[in-house]
Amino acid sequence: MRTIKKSESEIDAIKIVNQIRALGIDMIDEAKSGHPGIVLGAAPIMYTLYAHHLRFDIEHPDWFMRDRFIMSAGHGSALLYSTLHMAGYHIDVEDLKQFRKLDSMTPGHPEYGKTPGVDMTTGPLGQGFATAVGMAMAEAHLRSTFNIRRKEIIDFNTYVLCGDGDLMEGVSYEAASLAGTLKLNKLIVLYDSNRISLDGDTSLAFTENVIERFNALGWNTIQVLDGEDIDAIDKAIRAAKVSDRPTLIEVKTTIGKFSSLENTNQVHGKPLTREDISNIKAKMGLRDIPFAVSSDTIEDLQMLISNRNKTLYKDYLKQFDLLDDDLKEKLKSFIDGNREFEIKNFTYQYIDGEREALRDSSYKTLNAFAQNSDFLFGGSADLFSTCKNYLDQAGDFSSSNYAGKNIYFGVREHAMGCILNGLALVGYRAYGSTFFSFSDYLKPAIRMSALMNLGVIYIFTHDSISVGEDGPTHQAVEQLASLRATPNLEVFRPADANEVIGSYKVILEKVTGPAAIVLSRNKVPILNSTNINEVAKGAYVVRREVLNLNGIIIATGEEVHLALEVVDRLYSKGFDLRVVSMPNLGRFLAMEEEYREEILPVGIRKVVIERASSHSWNKLIFNDKYILSQDKFGSSGSKEELDQKYGFDIDSLEEKIENLLK
Amino acid sequence: MRTIKKSESEIDAIKIVNQIRALGIDMIDEAKSGHPGIVLGAAPIMYTLYAHHLRFDIEHPDWFMRDRFIMSAGHGSALLYSTLHMAGYHIDVEDLKQFRKLDSMTPGHPEYGKTPGVDMTTGPLGQGFATAVGMAMAEAHLRSTFNIRRKEIIDFNTYVLCGDGDLMEGVSYEAASLAGTLKLNKLIVLYDSNRISLDGDTSLAFTENVIERFNALGWNTIQVLDGEDIDAIDKAIRAAKVSDRPTLIEVKTTIGKFSSLENTNQVHGKPLTREDISNIKAKMGLRDIPFAVSSDTIEDLQMLISNRNKTLYKDYLKQFDLLDDDLKEKLKSFIDGNREFEIKNFTYQYIDGEREALRDSSYKTLNAFAQNSDFLFGGSADLFSTCKNYLDQAGDFSSSNYAGKNIYFGVREHAMGCILNGLALVGYRAYGSTFFSFSDYLKPAIRMSALMNLGVIYIFTHDSISVGEDGPTHQAVEQLASLRATPNLEVFRPADANEVIGSYKVILEKVTGPAAIVLSRNKVPILNSTNINEVAKGAYVVRREVLNLNGIIIATGEEVHLALEVVDRLYSKGFDLRVVSMPNLGRFLAMEEEYREEILPVGIRKVVIERASSHSWNKLIFNDKYILSQDKFGSSGSKEELDQKYGFDIDSLEEKIENLLK
Repeated sequence: MRTIKKSESEIDAIKIVNQIRALGIDMIDEAKSGHPGIVLGAAPIMYTLYAHHLRFDIEHPDWFMRDRFIMSAGHGSALLYSTLHMAGYHIDVEDLKQFRKLDSMTPGHPEYGKTPGVDMTTGPLGQGFATAVGMAMAEAHLRSTFNIRRKEIIDFNTYVLCGDGDLMEGVSYEAASLAGTLKLNKLIVLYDSNRISLDGDTSLAFTENVIERFNALGWNTIQVLDGEDIDAIDKAIRAAKVSDRPTLIEVKTTIGKFSSLENTNQVHGKPLTREDISNIKAKMGLRDIPFAVSSDTIEDLQMLISNRNKTLYKDYLKQFDLLDDDLKEKLKSFIDGNREFEIKNFTYQYIDGEREALRDSSYKTLNAFAQNSDFLFGGSADLFSTCKNYLDQAGDFSSSNYAGKNIYFGVREHAMGCILNGLALVGYRAYGSTFFSFSDYLKPAIRMSALMNLGVIYIFTHDSISVGEDGPTHQAVEQLASLRATPNLEVFRPADANEVIGSYKVILEKVTGPAAIVLSRNKVPILNSTNINEVAKGAYVVRREVLNLNGIIIATGEEVHLALEVVDRLYSKGFDLRVVSMPNLGRFLAMEEEYREEILPVGIRKVVIERASSHSWNKLIFNDKYILSQDKFGSSGSKEELDQKYGFDIDSLEEKIENLLK
Repeated sequence: MRTIKKSESEIDAIKIVNQIRALGIDMIDEAKSGHPGIVLGAAPIMYTLYAHHLRFDIEHPDWFMRDRFIMSAGHGSALLYSTLHMAGYHIDVEDLKQFRKLDSMTPGHPEYGKTPGVDMTTGPLGQGFATAVGMAMAEAHLRSTFNIRRKEIIDFNTYVLCGDGDLMEGVSYEAASLAGTLKLNKLIVLYDSNRISLDGDTSLAFTENVIERFNALGWNTIQVLDGEDIDAIDKAIRAAKVSDRPTLIEVKTTIGKFSSLENTNQVHGKPLTREDISNIKAKMGLRDIPFAVSSDTIEDLQMLISNRNKTLYKDYLKQFDLLDDDLKEKLKSFIDGNREFEIKNFTYQYIDGEREALRDSSYKTLNAFAQNSDFLFGGSADLFSTCKNYLDQAGDFSSSNYAGKNIYFGVREHAMGCILNGLALVGYRAYGSTFFSFSDYLKPAIRMSALMNLGVIYIFTHDSISVGEDGPTHQAVEQLASLRATPNLEVFRPADANEVIGSYKVILEKVTGPAAIVLSRNKVPILNSTNINEVAKGAYVVRREVLNLNGIIIATGEEVHLALEVVDRLYSKGFDLRVVSMPNLGRFLAMEEEYREEILPVGIRKVVIERASSHSWNKLIFNDKYILSQDKFGSSGSKEELDQKYGFDIDSLEEKIENLLK
């Protein structure tokens, strides 16, 4: 350890940058796979950000008020890990040597929860950028909630490092357009502009003027013409921090700097040769000893960080202490994720003897829960009016009202999904809505919710051919099967208002990861036999057989009502049937065998009714004949016409089930 | 019928526009559902396009050299149908009255193949725009193939009508950026700019400067400030037709023009009141008689169209006749979709005794087929180098070389899918590649391929946890289940080079709709027991039992090799097992029972091995215990580490299968 302290001006920044580079390429060499191009090209950006701007505390990497950093170009993981190591996070050289190895702290792409200093899982391009927009929205909303009574407790920036690939993805455009509309000035995107992507020069596919595009989106834009010019990068970030708009800093870099393959796509995604590594290190004035770190560079970088950040965490604790008690408690519970939804006080105004569309039930339920919650925050991809998840008297989230609780995402389903992930990463229980058939548009984001196990609620309405006239583009078929096959995702398809309430209760009380609530468009009766609390079990009996069980009809959602009608009719023909509502197939399959046997005894014939692909249902019923499903695309026509065409009218169902069970 | 012919200058365009509007709102009123806002707002655009620009022949609505028109704002179907009716297409008033009714010619959203004059199915926003880019690319490529020897046979424009919603969707940005790069000057987008979307004013979510954005993308942009100004719209389209870049014409319109709800989101998606309809018609100088059409307006519009278009088709036939015989034959077979792929002459250079990665097999197969085909046209979403579907010696498709056969889509999976649909709609057998886990990004486009039954080939590589180090974001799990549940889509997962060839052969010879070829990353042996021709059956025996069948292992793709190893090991332990390779589950399930019974006799225990979700496999095996699948997300690590962790190493498989079958 050196004892005489250097002044900041004595520090050799390039030396630190080159040390970051050397470690990064050593990691890739050791792992025999990885992406050296970005390590060599973007190290000066990472250095400048971590040395001079990013607010964090290495001893408290999850400190709530840290600046967020998203490596949207997730293949830059080696660059990120080497920077984090140098910056003092508890990632040691041994961890760097474990790069891309199983159960290491340094997986192939950054993974949320595995590495201190990694704020989200990235890899699928564009989503890091879009998720960062959600984080900046969360910060703005939190500010409006907590920075009151002349205290400023909430304050963090969200930084992104992205590449050409991120900006080619539509989802980053969607999110950028919304960020511009919302004037999210604490969002700062560092664009590693090397004009090379995996397949070659971006002139092949990407000749647009990115700066002009972001200007058109209402962003502040800055160009740094030399990616090695740390002062210029620093100056750009300083300017960004005082902008009243989100900022894109285009830093013109050289992919694979110093490599013999520099400035070509050859250096993007394959380890370098030993010879190249030696040459690169020679050019940087380093000897080629793998994982050698000059303690000077580490100390210098950490001194810079410490000079800037060392009191931040303590200052925050003091500030926190000065908050009024009610806010203190509120903020504490938010940060701790201690979400008492006050479900006990939840009230629901049933419309007795009435029919109610499930999206109306969802609207009432969501509003009732939201009354008691600071955690619920969400919106719609331009379908508030028809998906019905608008929060009354809660205002619209906009650049002039960050306190508003209703987010207008625009017709941008994919960005909505990513933004919900961003809100959830900051701590919100986030929700968003669109039509179920358009869940395809945001499936990549749903997958990321599931991978990170984020408590996002996807509200999907208009869930089957029963939407009718809008036709097959608007009628989901395979979406239920697809979501049910997605790991970590809970899929609910409630039958009536009770099950809608039950679904929300399970999600808010029991589910920590993502959930989809899938709702039909049409009015359905509110049943006496449905039960809020049984939803947690996935399935339960809604109509018990009278004496001797002759068969069981299993149904979900709107189809439960069809099942009940058919069973009534067949009873008069001598069939004594049971109806099982199964709002959540996955939960039911995970129940103990005893319960499953109680609900669906073996030896009793069972029929499933669901206006969707049969694919999920073979988990319960082997013979497709007993699954009355919708395995082809629908048509445009009235609900009645379609039900007749596809065999979901009561007469057809009665006939089919009678034949199956007799 | 009037006998004295009017001159064009005597025609009252506004009267025709209002007639289109009246019919459109009558349709919606009759159907009791639909979207009147765009009918009233965008009718002048449609009039101008159809009366003065669009090249078509009502007697030959599928005429190959017609201009294409895509109603990307698919909810504008009533506007489209009323325009088509007025323009003389064989859609009569009775058809208009059937709007949104089952099996009518006028479904709720435009559907390809159901209505003359409808060039694609639209509804899911953004995709019409992106697919149109594909059509313009197809035209450019065809031009470079056929407009040689000083003849210009290929010549059509692609027009799009889109709304704010289309432009908010990321997929339209992706496609627009590529269209700018490619300088697709025969693409003309008419932007119905009413600044209102379903949930309200676009200022809520969409304040960007669209014109500036498109300028940044390299487009020609034109603004028409008054959407009622037909001359200005006309002038703009004329300017667009001579531009050297794609053109966006922003027409500032008034949604729901003349309605009491005009300029509000209330008029977007619900029928108008009877009173409002009467008032609107009064403002337009029309009496409120539903579906009344003044014959003057029809005759006037058709005269305009006829003056312009009447000889087009005949001229084309003459031009066609002047082509050299070889080109004539080539073009005819292209137009007729008569695709002799010369599979007989197909040759494949096996690497004897070698292992070959399936993506290499795919590369060789695709290249071999492409040698003999003018129909194969495609590219990669920036993954040519790793998905390996580049066509050798075929050149890169670019603004300076439309003859190039390799399309660099950029990192734009969703636009790639839509563009493939556009290529297919013009007549190409289109293909595109990305990693399998990113198939989620383009699922909305795959669904449209399936809905329209287009012969698109999706090449997905890196198909499971066996990709290893790149980690869970890059490892597909639920994607096979999702695609297998999608109607009309064929899903192939071949085991080795033979099955790769077999898959391509089935696709090119037998499949008319879309197909996905799902390939692993790693090298696998080329087997003697696999069979090119058996792929068509979906499954077949690759290792027969020696004497007495004790059990069957079913596997797909890379896992077939695991199954064979395990069976060898278990044979020495006294188990006489069969291995069934099942490259296409759907095809096997559709085979006759006799064949299925032959391959998988009842009463014999069966085990499935697939490194993917179990969800599809219950169609074959009821008990999940017998399905050795990957139902959770993977990890970053070496293939070997992951196989051990998830039970796909040979030792684990041997043990599990021995226990299951003993």
